[in-house]
Amino acid sequence: MQQHLRPPAGFRLTGVSCGIKQKPGVEDLTLIVADKPCVAAGVYTQNVVRAAPVEWDRRLTPSDRIRAVVANSGNANACTGPQGWQDTVEMARLTAEAIGAEPDQVLVMSTGMIGDPLPMEKIRRGIRLAADSLGEDTEVFLRAARGILTTDRSEKIACQHLLLGSRIVQLVGFAKGAGMIGPHMATMLAVIMTDAVLDPPQAQQSLQQAVDASFNCISVEGHMSTNDTVLLLSSAPAGRESLSDEDCQQFTSCLTQLCIELACMIPDDGEGASHLIEIHVRGCRSRSEARAIARSIANSPLVKCAIAGGGPFWGRILSAAGYAGIPFNPDKVTVAVNGITMFQNGQPAAFDAQAASDSIRNNRKTIIELSLSEGHSEITFWTSDLTVDYVRFNADYRT
Amino acid sequence: MQQHLRPPAGFRLTGVSCGIKQKPGVEDLTLIVADKPCVAAGVYTQNVVRAAPVEWDRRLTPSDRIRAVVANSGNANACTGPQGWQDTVEMARLTAEAIGAEPDQVLVMSTGMIGDPLPMEKIRRGIRLAADSLGEDTEVFLRAARGILTTDRSEKIACQHLLLGSRIVQLVGFAKGAGMIGPHMATMLAVIMTDAVLDPPQAQQSLQQAVDASFNCISVEGHMSTNDTVLLLSSAPAGRESLSDEDCQQFTSCLTQLCIELACMIPDDGEGASHLIEIHVRGCRSRSEARAIARSIANSPLVKCAIAGGGPFWGRILSAAGYAGIPFNPDKVTVAVNGITMFQNGQPAAFDAQAASDSIRNNRKTIIELSLSEGHSEITFWTSDLTVDYVRFNADYRT
Repeated sequence: MQQHLRPPAGFRLTGVSCGIKQKPGVEDLTLIVADKPCVAAGVYTQNVVRAAPVEWDRRLTPSDRIRAVVANSGNANACTGPQGWQDTVEMARLTAEAIGAEPDQVLVMSTGMIGDPLPMEKIRRGIRLAADSLGEDTEVFLRAARGILTTDRSEKIACQHLLLGSRIVQLVGFAKGAGMIGPHMATMLAVIMTDAVLDPPQAQQSLQQAVDASFNCISVEGHMSTNDTVLLLSSAPAGRESLSDEDCQQFTSCLTQLCIELACMIPDDGEGASHLIEIHVRGCRSRSEARAIARSIANSPLVKCAIAGGGPFWGRILSAAGYAGIPFNPDKVTVAVNGITMFQNGQPAAFDAQAASDSIRNNRKTIIELSLSEGHSEITFWTSDLTVDYVRFNADYRT
Repeated sequence: MQQHLRPPAGFRLTGVSCGIKQKPGVEDLTLIVADKPCVAAGVYTQNVVRAAPVEWDRRLTPSDRIRAVVANSGNANACTGPQGWQDTVEMARLTAEAIGAEPDQVLVMSTGMIGDPLPMEKIRRGIRLAADSLGEDTEVFLRAARGILTTDRSEKIACQHLLLGSRIVQLVGFAKGAGMIGPHMATMLAVIMTDAVLDPPQAQQSLQQAVDASFNCISVEGHMSTNDTVLLLSSAPAGRESLSDEDCQQFTSCLTQLCIELACMIPDDGEGASHLIEIHVRGCRSRSEARAIARSIANSPLVKCAIAGGGPFWGRILSAAGYAGIPFNPDKVTVAVNGITMFQNGQPAAFDAQAASDSIRNNRKTIIELSLSEGHSEITFWTSDLTVDYVRFNADYRT
């Protein structure tokens, strides 16, 4: 895939190294520029404590006049008070100046250490450098994808194509997130670019729907960041009409697919993770109830430790479901792990514990299925297991 | 303290070994008998998935005719279907038979492995053995306290005295809990005995209030058990009137003190824990909002890892507060750790990071203070840190 990676028509981009991260030569600033004003939508963290760039982007999206996204890694510009806000505005201003636009046409993302002021001299140099090296080929695309990474092990990229009427539209996105940054805290960022012609409400609704089934269905350790941001940019070539309702629906399902692909890469790359855990919760009264139960299982350290150790401890799964705050009849519950039924209709089921343990140990992915009998809503949720390496990494404090 | 431990007048008790736990000679069955029908109140897990003994006790409390509490460790009798219920009823029946009472005068508690049927032959032998060895001295008291332990490192016992009018009343309790059992799941159990004269509604209300400020303010990993139970037994000597409202209030605050003492022993003894973390959340609109914020901080693996490693990462504390689902103004928040202010009124505060780290490393207890400006409600909450040993223990799967 990575041999022919290009942004959709109308976008240029790059990633540069400007010294925010300590390791020399590592990309830490990404710039995406739309040749003409483009449509942009955003979905953001629901944390009460929000970083300055999140506040900035929230005010500007949805929009049909965005010209650029500038993003830095290595510093989250979160909990930095009035100075943090000024620095975000300055990042937008510097970018606007470099590409010939207005500051309020520039979206900003930051990820990394919390509580430290942005090194604005480095940012200034980085923006200038990036504006001078924009391109459309695979090399700059990979640089851009790397510019937002922190503790990720590699780039997280996905693309999709879709035939709408007689036109093939492209969706390309990249994301970051592995559970921990700095070593201060988790942030998840993603940008998806498309040449499908969307108006701002379409873009916003489509993105909201896709995020709901993807980025809002993952967790590493359940710690919601101050900086989480997912952006959708549509280059919307002139002279084309925006999508019909039917085409928009098709576009949304394609966008959802792409977002799920990107989202799954995050817990799969979770700090110290040895398993990607996929949780299916079925038979709920509503999707939000299914999500609450799935999240409770996903965030249980006991469930996560069990999977890390290859233990088929269905009791931990069932009890985690039971304290999600959602009423259900435990006598009508079935629990299966990797297709092996362990608890059925309120009673333990006979199963080969050794085979179940081997199945968990020998596969990177563990599939947990919990079926209730309360309704017909369901959800799929993804998380990492919890390993000794996760704790080592996150307890590490180098003074 | 442990030199003169005795139950209040009217109670006899003991703990015996009947082979439910694999290790020979270790107590795994506890019996408490009231000479005459006593007042009993109970507070139970809020998990939707509840073990059979919890269902049994919920039906019988509050009451003024309880004669005994029988408890076993090594097997939780949870998620065991109809057989589990029959076994709980049988435990009550066997106990009633042994002491000359009715089955519905016997409360039952179980803790340990989930999903396995109770070994009823061992239980039967244990109950007989216990009924024959009841006593009132320190030795049997300690045996009783040990009979409910699982992975705890030692007995958890607390006692208080209180002058009500011209009479000194006694409160003695023991508890268990360390975060993990079996190695299957967490359970917290506690029994408090008193010779204060309470009627059932007084006992229930007093216990509910005490638990609210103690056992409901602790977590090890946030995984609520199927078996959590706290019981209060009052031997209520004949011929005495139950407490006046004022005396009852005094009793409740003494009971609360005792419950806090017992409750704190649980995270302090948390699996692999190297720190007891005490979290003060102040300035909230309500106590329940303060509890939600405190619990969010207490259950954040990032906060717990930070304390384990001695990292003064206030950003993790602040962001965990921010995703508790409670709105607050982050510009009016102060965060302090061990008395060192790290974030004040929406901005990072200057502090000596090395001194802060040393203070965390060099003390068993870490005190986190979060002050909001939304109201005047507050709460204190206790948890463990998250260490490599916790994960090692809970990922351990011996096939």
